[in-house]
Amino acid sequence: MAKIFLALKLLFLPGKKCNKKLIKLLGYCPRKQAIYDLAFIHSSASLLSPDKSVINNERLEFLGDAVLDAVVAEYLFSNYPNKDEGFLSMMRSKIVKRKHLNLLAIKIGIDKFIVANALNNSGSKHVSGNAFEALIGAIYLDKGYKKAKKFIIHKVLNTQINLEELENTETDFKSRIIEWAQKNRSEISFENQEEYSASDHSALFVSRIMVENQLMGSGKGSSKKEAEQNAAEQVYNSISSH
Amino acid sequence: MAKIFLALKLLFLPGKKCNKKLIKLLGYCPRKQAIYDLAFIHSSASLLSPDKSVINNERLEFLGDAVLDAVVAEYLFSNYPNKDEGFLSMMRSKIVKRKHLNLLAIKIGIDKFIVANALNNSGSKHVSGNAFEALIGAIYLDKGYKKAKKFIIHKVLNTQINLEELENTETDFKSRIIEWAQKNRSEISFENQEEYSASDHSALFVSRIMVENQLMGSGKGSSKKEAEQNAAEQVYNSISSH
Repeated sequence: MAKIFLALKLLFLPGKKCNKKLIKLLGYCPRKQAIYDLAFIHSSASLLSPDKSVINNERLEFLGDAVLDAVVAEYLFSNYPNKDEGFLSMMRSKIVKRKHLNLLAIKIGIDKFIVANALNNSGSKHVSGNAFEALIGAIYLDKGYKKAKKFIIHKVLNTQINLEELENTETDFKSRIIEWAQKNRSEISFENQEEYSASDHSALFVSRIMVENQLMGSGKGSSKKEAEQNAAEQVYNSISSH
Repeated sequence: MAKIFLALKLLFLPGKKCNKKLIKLLGYCPRKQAIYDLAFIHSSASLLSPDKSVINNERLEFLGDAVLDAVVAEYLFSNYPNKDEGFLSMMRSKIVKRKHLNLLAIKIGIDKFIVANALNNSGSKHVSGNAFEALIGAIYLDKGYKKAKKFIIHKVLNTQINLEELENTETDFKSRIIEWAQKNRSEISFENQEEYSASDHSALFVSRIMVENQLMGSGKGSSKKEAEQNAAEQVYNSISSH
């Protein structure tokens, strides 16, 4: 009952007075406080609305993720007038990847606002990064695209990101070893397996890398990308040490 | 020489007089005509800038793709207040998938503006969809996010898309057969192979679907997704006919 009441309050009541800590984070007083409250509700602390739909920050995260991608795309587009879209896309994926977003979110203090339930939250590693995206979604809905863009540029891109350093950070081991194989005129193939057990709904990913039909490395992960990068990092390290 | 001159003109000269056909398409007279000209240059007709960087619409496509994703995200977010992010994400991928964007682009007449080189363009099937995204990138740079959003909503979402119909279009065969397997308490796994030959830089993707270690279907494609969906559609059709 208390949960339903809180859910109703979050959804339908006008905003509370300005939260000082939130003003410090955002740089302004929210118009619609309830959207920001929602942005900080992790799925482990989900509420139920009267119509039985689940209330947490995942819808806002979906929206914020897209807005973040667009803002970062424009930022890179104008910062690198002579680089092609492959480079821009690679730089963006370095900026917005979950591990990186988690660190950024904690640096700017978003983790302190999050409502999560430790008991329900054994599996999720990306609580802060997800809330960060949800917050961007909230800013967008409350104040529009320009304000969301300003927040991302001031709070993150101009202050927390060193583009030069990022250019030189190797995160894409897969591309590196494909380049290496093609330079050496070797055939390279990635064999990925994605298993869904009958009981458990999450998938397990396994990746194997073959060069000229010889197994060169393997990796596991909770996504295809993670498994593949783990396998590729192994191969990368072994060819770099020769 | 002529190419370099055109490139310089495209990049640095102020806009030409309003192009009537373009006004009809956009609903306004562009401020920076050169950006729109650039949006219609397919990579097969690439130009070279004086500093030897390649000039075509691919950078704008990268930008427009992100803006389109954000606008469609918000549109679905507000049209489906009670649906979760999984649903929103699935609906968005139906709207923005290349095949669909190509059709939309041709319907609204974008193909007539495209400059492509038939001789260099044997491999590319998505010229119109890509130019459509590049055009969105151009509108965004010339007139801002709001105008790009208006264009997408008026020209596409409100006029060319039937959400109800789209909800019922089955495009995600993979999810369907995972659901089917789990309902039947069967283990299902996807085995994907991605081959880079030593000479050719494009990859070939092959996907096999195993249920309880029995091969149920296979497919090929130029992306992992395409190969997997082809394999999954085969399995889906065979289980639907039983």
